[in-house]
Amino acid sequence: MTDKFSSRHNGPREQEVKEMLAKIGVSSVDELIDQTVPEKIRLKKPLKIGDAMSEFQYAKHLRSVAKKNKVFRSYIGLGYYNNILPAVIQRNVLENPGWYTAYTPYQAEIAQGRLEAILNFQTTVIDLTAMPIANASLLDEATAAAEAMFMFYNNRSKTKQGAHKFFVSNTCFPQNIDVVKTRAVPVGIEVVIGDVNSVSLDDSYFGALIQYPDINGEIVDYRNFTASCKGKEIQVAVATDLLTLALITPPGEWGADCVVGNSQRFGVPLGYGGPHAAFFACREDYKRLIPGRIIGVSVDAEGNRALRMALQTREQHIKREKATSNICTAQALLAIMASMYAVYHGPDGIKSIAEQVHKSTVTVAEELKKLGYKIQTKLFFDTIVVEADANKVRSLAESNEINFRYPSDKLVAISLDQTAELADLYDIVSVFAKAAGKENAEFSVLNPTLTSSSAARKSEYLTHPVFNSYRSETEMMRYIKRLENKDLSLVHSMISLGSCTMKLNAASELLPLTWPEFANIHPFVPVEQAKGYQYVIKELTKDLSNITGFASMSLQPNSGAQGESAGLMVIRAYHIANGNPNRNVVLIPSSAHGTNPASAALAGMQIVIVKCDVKGNIDVKDLKEKAEQYKDTLSCLMVTYPSTHGVYEESIKKITKIIHDNGGQVYMDGANMNAQVGLTSPGNIGADVCHLNLHKTFAIPHGGGGPGMGPIGVAKHLVEFLPSHPVIKTGGEKGITAVSAAPYGSSLILLISYGYIKMLGNDGLTEATKTAILNANYMKEILKDHYKILYTGKNGRCAHEMILDCNDFKMASGVEVADIAKRLMDYGFHAPTVAFPVVNTLMVEPTESENKAELDRFCEAMIHIRKEVQEIMDGKFEKTDNVIKNAPHTSKLVVSDNWNKSYSREKAAYPLAWVKGNKFWPSVARVDNAFGDRNLVCACPPIEMYSEPETELVQ
Amino acid sequence: MTDKFSSRHNGPREQEVKEMLAKIGVSSVDELIDQTVPEKIRLKKPLKIGDAMSEFQYAKHLRSVAKKNKVFRSYIGLGYYNNILPAVIQRNVLENPGWYTAYTPYQAEIAQGRLEAILNFQTTVIDLTAMPIANASLLDEATAAAEAMFMFYNNRSKTKQGAHKFFVSNTCFPQNIDVVKTRAVPVGIEVVIGDVNSVSLDDSYFGALIQYPDINGEIVDYRNFTASCKGKEIQVAVATDLLTLALITPPGEWGADCVVGNSQRFGVPLGYGGPHAAFFACREDYKRLIPGRIIGVSVDAEGNRALRMALQTREQHIKREKATSNICTAQALLAIMASMYAVYHGPDGIKSIAEQVHKSTVTVAEELKKLGYKIQTKLFFDTIVVEADANKVRSLAESNEINFRYPSDKLVAISLDQTAELADLYDIVSVFAKAAGKENAEFSVLNPTLTSSSAARKSEYLTHPVFNSYRSETEMMRYIKRLENKDLSLVHSMISLGSCTMKLNAASELLPLTWPEFANIHPFVPVEQAKGYQYVIKELTKDLSNITGFASMSLQPNSGAQGESAGLMVIRAYHIANGNPNRNVVLIPSSAHGTNPASAALAGMQIVIVKCDVKGNIDVKDLKEKAEQYKDTLSCLMVTYPSTHGVYEESIKKITKIIHDNGGQVYMDGANMNAQVGLTSPGNIGADVCHLNLHKTFAIPHGGGGPGMGPIGVAKHLVEFLPSHPVIKTGGEKGITAVSAAPYGSSLILLISYGYIKMLGNDGLTEATKTAILNANYMKEILKDHYKILYTGKNGRCAHEMILDCNDFKMASGVEVADIAKRLMDYGFHAPTVAFPVVNTLMVEPTESENKAELDRFCEAMIHIRKEVQEIMDGKFEKTDNVIKNAPHTSKLVVSDNWNKSYSREKAAYPLAWVKGNKFWPSVARVDNAFGDRNLVCACPPIEMYSEPETELVQ
Repeated sequence: MTDKFSSRHNGPREQEVKEMLAKIGVSSVDELIDQTVPEKIRLKKPLKIGDAMSEFQYAKHLRSVAKKNKVFRSYIGLGYYNNILPAVIQRNVLENPGWYTAYTPYQAEIAQGRLEAILNFQTTVIDLTAMPIANASLLDEATAAAEAMFMFYNNRSKTKQGAHKFFVSNTCFPQNIDVVKTRAVPVGIEVVIGDVNSVSLDDSYFGALIQYPDINGEIVDYRNFTASCKGKEIQVAVATDLLTLALITPPGEWGADCVVGNSQRFGVPLGYGGPHAAFFACREDYKRLIPGRIIGVSVDAEGNRALRMALQTREQHIKREKATSNICTAQALLAIMASMYAVYHGPDGIKSIAEQVHKSTVTVAEELKKLGYKIQTKLFFDTIVVEADANKVRSLAESNEINFRYPSDKLVAISLDQTAELADLYDIVSVFAKAAGKENAEFSVLNPTLTSSSAARKSEYLTHPVFNSYRSETEMMRYIKRLENKDLSLVHSMISLGSCTMKLNAASELLPLTWPEFANIHPFVPVEQAKGYQYVIKELTKDLSNITGFASMSLQPNSGAQGESAGLMVIRAYHIANGNPNRNVVLIPSSAHGTNPASAALAGMQIVIVKCDVKGNIDVKDLKEKAEQYKDTLSCLMVTYPSTHGVYEESIKKITKIIHDNGGQVYMDGANMNAQVGLTSPGNIGADVCHLNLHKTFAIPHGGGGPGMGPIGVAKHLVEFLPSHPVIKTGGEKGITAVSAAPYGSSLILLISYGYIKMLGNDGLTEATKTAILNANYMKEILKDHYKILYTGKNGRCAHEMILDCNDFKMASGVEVADIAKRLMDYGFHAPTVAFPVVNTLMVEPTESENKAELDRFCEAMIHIRKEVQEIMDGKFEKTDNVIKNAPHTSKLVVSDNWNKSYSREKAAYPLAWVKGNKFWPSVARVDNAFGDRNLVCACPPIEMYSEPETELVQ
Repeated sequence: MTDKFSSRHNGPREQEVKEMLAKIGVSSVDELIDQTVPEKIRLKKPLKIGDAMSEFQYAKHLRSVAKKNKVFRSYIGLGYYNNILPAVIQRNVLENPGWYTAYTPYQAEIAQGRLEAILNFQTTVIDLTAMPIANASLLDEATAAAEAMFMFYNNRSKTKQGAHKFFVSNTCFPQNIDVVKTRAVPVGIEVVIGDVNSVSLDDSYFGALIQYPDINGEIVDYRNFTASCKGKEIQVAVATDLLTLALITPPGEWGADCVVGNSQRFGVPLGYGGPHAAFFACREDYKRLIPGRIIGVSVDAEGNRALRMALQTREQHIKREKATSNICTAQALLAIMASMYAVYHGPDGIKSIAEQVHKSTVTVAEELKKLGYKIQTKLFFDTIVVEADANKVRSLAESNEINFRYPSDKLVAISLDQTAELADLYDIVSVFAKAAGKENAEFSVLNPTLTSSSAARKSEYLTHPVFNSYRSETEMMRYIKRLENKDLSLVHSMISLGSCTMKLNAASELLPLTWPEFANIHPFVPVEQAKGYQYVIKELTKDLSNITGFASMSLQPNSGAQGESAGLMVIRAYHIANGNPNRNVVLIPSSAHGTNPASAALAGMQIVIVKCDVKGNIDVKDLKEKAEQYKDTLSCLMVTYPSTHGVYEESIKKITKIIHDNGGQVYMDGANMNAQVGLTSPGNIGADVCHLNLHKTFAIPHGGGGPGMGPIGVAKHLVEFLPSHPVIKTGGEKGITAVSAAPYGSSLILLISYGYIKMLGNDGLTEATKTAILNANYMKEILKDHYKILYTGKNGRCAHEMILDCNDFKMASGVEVADIAKRLMDYGFHAPTVAFPVVNTLMVEPTESENKAELDRFCEAMIHIRKEVQEIMDGKFEKTDNVIKNAPHTSKLVVSDNWNKSYSREKAAYPLAWVKGNKFWPSVARVDNAFGDRNLVCACPPIEMYSEPETELVQ
């Protein structure tokens, strides 16, 4: 074949590699690798992935895999529904790298587009649930329910500190119940499952979870229940459905404290379980406890309205062991899609869609009654439970390519959706007619019954102009593009975020996501209908096991943090099975990602911090002492490799041995896996469990803050404990309960990593790792004369990333790393990782996908900024008024006739000649975080606010 | 269903419509229509399209249609080849409205992205053909060959004026021969088809066409032939293949005067025949005769390099009856894709792909020889002709889902391509082995034979940096995005080009284009493999016939101009068949599109201009006089309706009757069909033929200058004359020869118009027309107080467009309409049509897809510009130095520290408050057309030019 994908995925060309090696001072890439990666941890055998497929071969291959999936009409429900993704959103958001390659919007000034879209999402949730605040999305409904439980637990009043019971209605979706159990047990919460109608909750309960409408489709009036809970300080979480809330009284109007659910139904494909954005809304006094991110309204340095992530200092992973959640990655791209669906349809459209779904359901129910069937569900929106011979119905349904849900041999549940047309209703009724040995007559769609019931919604929603302005496709397309063009993504320039691995998300990996054979499969279809997916899952499990040196994987966790939780649960289950339930201490190096202690805390573990030495390596002596000190209660070590300091620690094998010698397990954080693939592996180093961030190492795009995937690999002795699922069989014989709502997490995007691995093959995967190391070391050689490089290996090499120390000039110039991040925007770059893992530093990770020209451009910008710092140090500019402190500079400012800075417009906007040729204009000036946090507004602000941003905002 | 496509396609909402009607002063849309469209031409019956499908229903429907197509492996060749479209180009160009909704780059300052891409295309063609100049693409190889013939004909030296014979080698592709014949006959060129090896050309020949490699795959050494032609002033055109030229001596090195071909092989899907970009390269002295557009290098007002369409004053349709070509729409989007393919692969990659194709062919040839077959082709690149029992081979091949070409019962031709892998070669050989009753052995790919032959190419190509810089997908994606972001398209704001109908190109209409069932079908497969396409073609023919009021259609013409030619040929054939070969006079109103007289001239007709009255209507008296004067020789009238002046002429039925009474036919130019659909029709008005611009009225995007489609509809008496095709049966019993290379023109994009019609249905189509009229009349009411409106109907209404007269202030302010066009860019708008059909005017056509808010924004900009004109008239600013004359203003200029204009930066860049919120920055300042025309450079300029743009450029 003429074309190797690896040569498209990796940035530098042969000639560039030569020049880079010369700069580094080595004669070959392999020499560099030998100097960088300790010999004793190198793999002795090549990977067993096989040869690389070309992009063309892969497309052909995946088409044949796709054909193995059978796309039936699925009326299964349980939180997943067919829907219609508007083509304008598909093409301009889901299929557009301008949206999907963006990073989490930490750098607000170059992220106003997705910040606005997510604010729209929050507003949609707030309006439909009738709750005062909402977050920017969570991973799925089940984990959102678990997060609600934690939030309630952490919010217990002084008098309720002893309460440790959490009531879960037995009419909740099974996956919600299962995940809540998984998360409750280790922290000592007792989950009590029961009948909401008959249960009597006492003071030992701190919270409850109910489903609305419930699993049987019943719209229960929970007013009495919530009122009785309120009296006992029992906080109530409601799992619900956004579309249903367009027609029925929202939980916010009958006493819910927290409302969660899946927004998938708003135009997001089923994708065999995900990714979809869960939502999370709650009362305002949970503001500082709410898990995940919140987008809030603030102002910029020029006094204009600007958005940013609010209350960032309370981000759970930053709170480390004090965290009340470990949520980090969310489902930004899917939340954006759902928000666009709301923007496109508006209140009338959403209501009309809801009514259509409801009318379809009414029609089917009435026709089935005519046929003599009994409908158990009394007041319903889209789901009815029918008394029928389930086996007979099933057999007839499947032969008509229809899936229902079968709660028992005598019950059939039907959940209707936006895609069901009259002909589909007719087919549904026909199945039951045949099962009853009858003919079904012609019928037409009936009127809604719900709207005249006591449950009918009276309040308005989606009244903000943004939901009432973009009704034509032309206007919608322009709105989407306008937002896209405010955001800097990988389509513009490199995003060198250390620890985030912003590599190429190749079009050939992404194209299949909208193929209907993959997009339109419900996660709970019989597995024989999902043979295409099962094939990919099996192959991917095999390949990832090979890459990590493990025995098997679970693809269920939806994010790195969730992978951590899942991994710790597996270790816990292992210790318990071995008769060591007391093994509960986790050692965590001080340099660890914040999610590590957060996840450990949420797994109910006792956290013991291990020191690092001056070189940034784990202090082996301290580790040994602590391992021995806790040898009877040691559960595990959590360790990142190469370290978060960007170094391959030489002592890693010694470290893992110490842990094992003291009865512990080694949990490896896979964030830096991009520096391991093909050269070493977690299994090879001695880890027992590792999560992989597929959205870092394995090419899933960051989507502006999600989706992600965090599957875990485990050594042989842990395989039997891998997570199970209450609906679809997954995991080991003694598998822990589910960690995600869907059996294989966000299955749809597994295709991306599958494509990445198959198109790189053995050689390509290893070459990618080597190139990532080459790129980092090349940058280090250029930047080291201008910035102090913190931590390198024994031969002076960094791994795939490096830390630039900015302490030196902070005092002398007043310039902080956050300022440099803002100034980089004027050069057209997104900042590297700021102040992690060391304060006053920048962590730079170029990845293998950037070529030398782009690395040079970035280095030139960094060096020029260093010169600008020098100018301040030399007194040429004021410490508080200079080109860095005032960054970023908007076009409005530099074009302004009232320019009054001490430097020129050109110096502000075009600091280097090549910036002129490809200028990216930040859409707002420096955003005022403090202002926004003092005045939290997390829904679209009223129009008046746009003109008077200085006003103190009242919520 | 909850969602009507018509409410997404049309811009204004119900409330907006009310406000617009109030402004216009009517109580309903129907009242407006009654005042606008003459009662006597209104349709009496509704359309028969049927009810509208929703977007979801259409997607389901089209998936089922797609399944009717059988995608075999086609090794048919004849100018169409399977290839691999790089995913990065598919996603970021073909599937990106930022590229496909752009207009032809007349407004160069906001079109530098596509201008650069097309310049890359020209450079690719120039390099590979080794010719000095190339144009920006033509419609297909066959029409390009015909254009070469015309160019030669018009270039005959004084001594050769009597020469009227054109030699065509009998080893040319059949569609090339057929189209050349079609175009030659009416102008009196005699086409002589013969054997290039034995023919002896005398002085009566002015030109020749040969195919290289020829139809049998033979790489003929034409050196003696061209040398002998040269001696007799016989100009030689070579039809060739770009990929082949990567390996063999290019025609420019052995004496070709003109080189044409199809660039489809460079990453453009087969699409059952198109759209693909043909190329056209020639010697430099044809510079002013070369058909179509040329992109050239020039400088802008700030002295920077800038691109624009060169030599625009020689655009053929502007030359009207003096034109030597009627080419207008080309295949810009496809040329851009082909150019990106060259940029992505570079010289090494292109060569490697060519070698792979060639090696595959060598391998098959050798294996077939081993099986005892005789290969007729001696020196080949990708095509061989095999002596074999064609029927036996065909039957075996088709049962293996393989298509070959079968020149006779005893011959099988095989053309290999980039997609053929070893397994495919094996399958090919297996078919022949079975046909011979033998087993085929294992084999591997052989070495190339061509590279060591005398035909081997020695010269370099694609040496410019642009073809050697973007090798990784990351770099390629950023390059594509960087160019995209320089261009203003429909994703930014309305493009109100009069007569161009820049309406919504809906995502749901466009999505199917990359489905493999439509993309990967060769135009010459047996029709039973293309049942999906045939279904669409049949339905579309039926629907368009209904809409136009005609008996049938030909979908073959690839553009409006081609439709005109085809229509005139059909009329000519009709007159001849009726014994009236002398009917050769065409009446054309003075207000006609320039293409009308150009097409008529190229159809060999005698053109008689009919006057218009002061109201812009056809002068019926003059028409009647001329019709009677030429009653014995009258062929037809060419008329646009509503007129190009934007008015529904009341007398149109009288006019068509006058023509018919005098034995003539009425040809209607369908450019303004968007004002007719559902209200009236060409058939209803009395036309006999009409072409439709599917890229105007029927939602095919303009693609930055193509593709287009110009099918013709005809009344019953003309059906039998509709165009035939030499390979696939099309057209009537007495059909004229082919007008396009492919039987159904650019079949792939027919899907767009099909979707448009099916999703709008009867009511939606009519509503779109009414809304277009509503939008135009609303704008007229707003603008009429600021600009004089030329021409309205008897009730003071315009049709779907209006003409703004700028004569009044031209003298007083020095501001010309071209200046207004440039100033609109500063407001973020593309100009309306400039100086057509009346000098010193702007013609504005909003289309139905814009909403009131956007119309208001545009009007506000126009009104504000009028105020800026007033400031000049009032002497506040100099006539030669003001905000309009200096427009557009780049960010570089307004940010410059050396601002020295007489007005402020903010006045220049942010003339209205809302511009700040959504600024589109022109990437270059006013482009100097004269400079570029004096110094024509139509290939990528050497790098040095970038730094010294002031230098007089030497080619």
